[in-house]
Amino acid sequence: MRIDTTGTYTDLYQIAMGQSLFRDGQHRRRAVFDYFFRRIPFEGGYVVFAGLEDLLDTLESWRFTEEEIEYLESHGFERDYLEHLRTLRFTGNLLAAREGEVVFPAEPILRVEADVLEAQLIETLLLNTLNFQSLIATKAARIREVAGDAILSEFGLRRAQGPAGVPAARAAVIGGFDSTSNVYAAQRYGLRAEGTMAHAFIQWHGDELAAFRAFAQARPDNTVLLVDTYSTLESGVPNAITVGREMAARGQRLRAIRLDSGDLAFFARRARVLLDEAGLHEVKIAASNQLDEYVVRSLRQQGAPIDIFGVGTSLATGQPDAALDGVYKLAAAHGEPRIKVSESLAKTTLPGPKQVHRFLAPDGGFHGVDGVVLEGESPPRALIHPFEPHKTTRLPELASEPLLMPVLHEGRRLHAPRSVMEIRAHASARRALLPPEYRRFENPHVWKVGLSHALHGLREDLRRARLHPENPA
Amino acid sequence: MRIDTTGTYTDLYQIAMGQSLFRDGQHRRRAVFDYFFRRIPFEGGYVVFAGLEDLLDTLESWRFTEEEIEYLESHGFERDYLEHLRTLRFTGNLLAAREGEVVFPAEPILRVEADVLEAQLIETLLLNTLNFQSLIATKAARIREVAGDAILSEFGLRRAQGPAGVPAARAAVIGGFDSTSNVYAAQRYGLRAEGTMAHAFIQWHGDELAAFRAFAQARPDNTVLLVDTYSTLESGVPNAITVGREMAARGQRLRAIRLDSGDLAFFARRARVLLDEAGLHEVKIAASNQLDEYVVRSLRQQGAPIDIFGVGTSLATGQPDAALDGVYKLAAAHGEPRIKVSESLAKTTLPGPKQVHRFLAPDGGFHGVDGVVLEGESPPRALIHPFEPHKTTRLPELASEPLLMPVLHEGRRLHAPRSVMEIRAHASARRALLPPEYRRFENPHVWKVGLSHALHGLREDLRRARLHPENPA
Repeated sequence: MRIDTTGTYTDLYQIAMGQSLFRDGQHRRRAVFDYFFRRIPFEGGYVVFAGLEDLLDTLESWRFTEEEIEYLESHGFERDYLEHLRTLRFTGNLLAAREGEVVFPAEPILRVEADVLEAQLIETLLLNTLNFQSLIATKAARIREVAGDAILSEFGLRRAQGPAGVPAARAAVIGGFDSTSNVYAAQRYGLRAEGTMAHAFIQWHGDELAAFRAFAQARPDNTVLLVDTYSTLESGVPNAITVGREMAARGQRLRAIRLDSGDLAFFARRARVLLDEAGLHEVKIAASNQLDEYVVRSLRQQGAPIDIFGVGTSLATGQPDAALDGVYKLAAAHGEPRIKVSESLAKTTLPGPKQVHRFLAPDGGFHGVDGVVLEGESPPRALIHPFEPHKTTRLPELASEPLLMPVLHEGRRLHAPRSVMEIRAHASARRALLPPEYRRFENPHVWKVGLSHALHGLREDLRRARLHPENPA
Repeated sequence: MRIDTTGTYTDLYQIAMGQSLFRDGQHRRRAVFDYFFRRIPFEGGYVVFAGLEDLLDTLESWRFTEEEIEYLESHGFERDYLEHLRTLRFTGNLLAAREGEVVFPAEPILRVEADVLEAQLIETLLLNTLNFQSLIATKAARIREVAGDAILSEFGLRRAQGPAGVPAARAAVIGGFDSTSNVYAAQRYGLRAEGTMAHAFIQWHGDELAAFRAFAQARPDNTVLLVDTYSTLESGVPNAITVGREMAARGQRLRAIRLDSGDLAFFARRARVLLDEAGLHEVKIAASNQLDEYVVRSLRQQGAPIDIFGVGTSLATGQPDAALDGVYKLAAAHGEPRIKVSESLAKTTLPGPKQVHRFLAPDGGFHGVDGVVLEGESPPRALIHPFEPHKTTRLPELASEPLLMPVLHEGRRLHAPRSVMEIRAHASARRALLPPEYRRFENPHVWKVGLSHALHGLREDLRRARLHPENPA
């Protein structure tokens, strides 16, 4: 099975709206769209922005294949439009937060400036890529928050949402994981692949010690023995110690044992004692079995001597949220700012091309405030709450950084692709700038996102003009 | 971006265990593995088995590419093993329930009989494919249960878990959906593609009526107008009526209007009245916006005149479960039955090659009981509870059907691929045989899965031999 993110990797309505725009000769007029989300998943304090480099790769090679054009003919699209699609490439500009950045609701994280047809056709692809990888990177970061310096390995492919297991492994590493069991993802993205052994291998041999010995012979450089197939303390750990000593006698080293059932804190503690008594101080203890950030935190708080956590389903599928609610909204049409109005201000969009300024505390950490401004505005000195405009904040004299930087110009990358490990390092550095109250699990502090007076004013003008067209503001 | 499910689409430990088996000359010995799950998602009464045809496609073309072999060299695998992998194909046999079947916890749904190396290498791929598609088909079936004869369209690609949006569309149709917005999936799987229009299209034009007219001109055969951009009842529906009348005057027909916000029941009722008053009785009403089976049920119970439901995120990601817990367990090694013991009988596996017999009530519907037997046994007359062996059931004189049928022999398909629409029809027919108490949402009746005496006895013998090896039974 193969999945390509080409031209038809989109919703039919994008192609249908494109037909109308093309027919009316509007398809090359310029549009500005914003990507942003409304709610932080996992009841957390921040989102880790991920998926950008994959998106840029896809946009640089984005096209409709001949088979796709033929298929679209059967949907009644007009021939001249399909001829246009046949040679269409993405030639727009993208500005985006750097991949790995911590980002917050309601602020634009990415901006597309392109011919409206192209901007519309890539919407679904863009949302599909960024929403999912940001969800998983955020989940991974939560696990990293509580795992200290333990090794974290992503084990989710078997329960992942089909092919989503591949970008999930990438995003997990961006969020702070060290490795993945997913060989395909490891090769593709230059990740560290990690593997242990399965119960079936021990069942196959019948005799646990024989299975351990066979595995150690075959994989002496990376031997991790699964010790819970029969009885962890009466059989698994003693047999692992036997093999660990045999390896030591051959000048090799047993890397780890793995616990995959039962009370992981209890078994880890007992196994550690047994390993240490046998002089196998360097043998690590790995644990798996339905882990998530809460279980990992509990194990750490109990002081369980676990060195490696293998996290599968909850990470690779982003349980329990399973989705980030990112959207892509029109902010300008042929140079004029646009909004989508709603009775709720929270669902009214922000007009025009915008920038986000992030304020830094005097100690260099984040101050906890981002200001959304119209492009070209200086970092603002006061901010208006985006949905409750009676709330305003005056800012002290603070340094700030713009979040949105050009990444694609006329369809081409402006910088060399960043490796996943480079993005992971950036994500880690940015999270380190978050004051601890934004990182905690229980009622994390709410990061303030505010609007400049000019942006708020523009939205109000457009809102009034839309709601009362007889009285244009 | 492209994802291929080739040889390295697996966990590293599968390849590592394979190295050990190959080194010891055991890789061609025969193994039997079972696929089954333990818990029904969504607190439902059944699971719809899906993903099989995709799995068969993948297994027929399964191989390691040259690039993959090169990559594995860097992981310290031995040269002769890699040479073996280079030409390895899947040459095993598969028996499986028919795709679309309703299936239940603890019973084998699929059985692999193959050289142990092949059986082990495909484990992750198999779980990844079947777990996800069965999850989504099950969610879709729940929505179909409450949607009556309404048209159901899958709209999830933008919030799907990246590339999972493609098999999600397939599985949604198997579970009872009529169409998808996902053009790529529609082309690939022969699904009906459905599209409406977006708010951005109306914002782009500024004027709603102008936008509606432009769209109707471009897509006269499939015009669905989104009516909630400004004011559903004061602007959207009246403008849609204007366009509907203009289309009628041209001999065309407005297909539908779409509601995407607010109280869908209220707006649908009011819109229906307005459309009917305008003589547009045939214009359908579509609704979307965070729908799931509970919201659809509520709308139907309220008698909301909605003809088409577009369901996105909750369907395409299988919220809130996000995963089916299917596993793949060794049942026999070189001809001898094997089990994995556990202190909990629920986690002790079932030994040997097995068959499942489904009992039919005299009226032809399902009786609500499946019997798991050792291969070759007749349909049993009495069953033992799989985890609480003091519970036994005697069965009345009933007809039965075997669930597991050969689908792959020596790596080749035994029947022509079934189309998604054919599988959908089978799924629908099988669900129709379920008594209503298994289909309800609140505390659905628990389907009985029992073991034959012979299977139970074999498991007990192996358990005792494993737990008390000094006293082999």
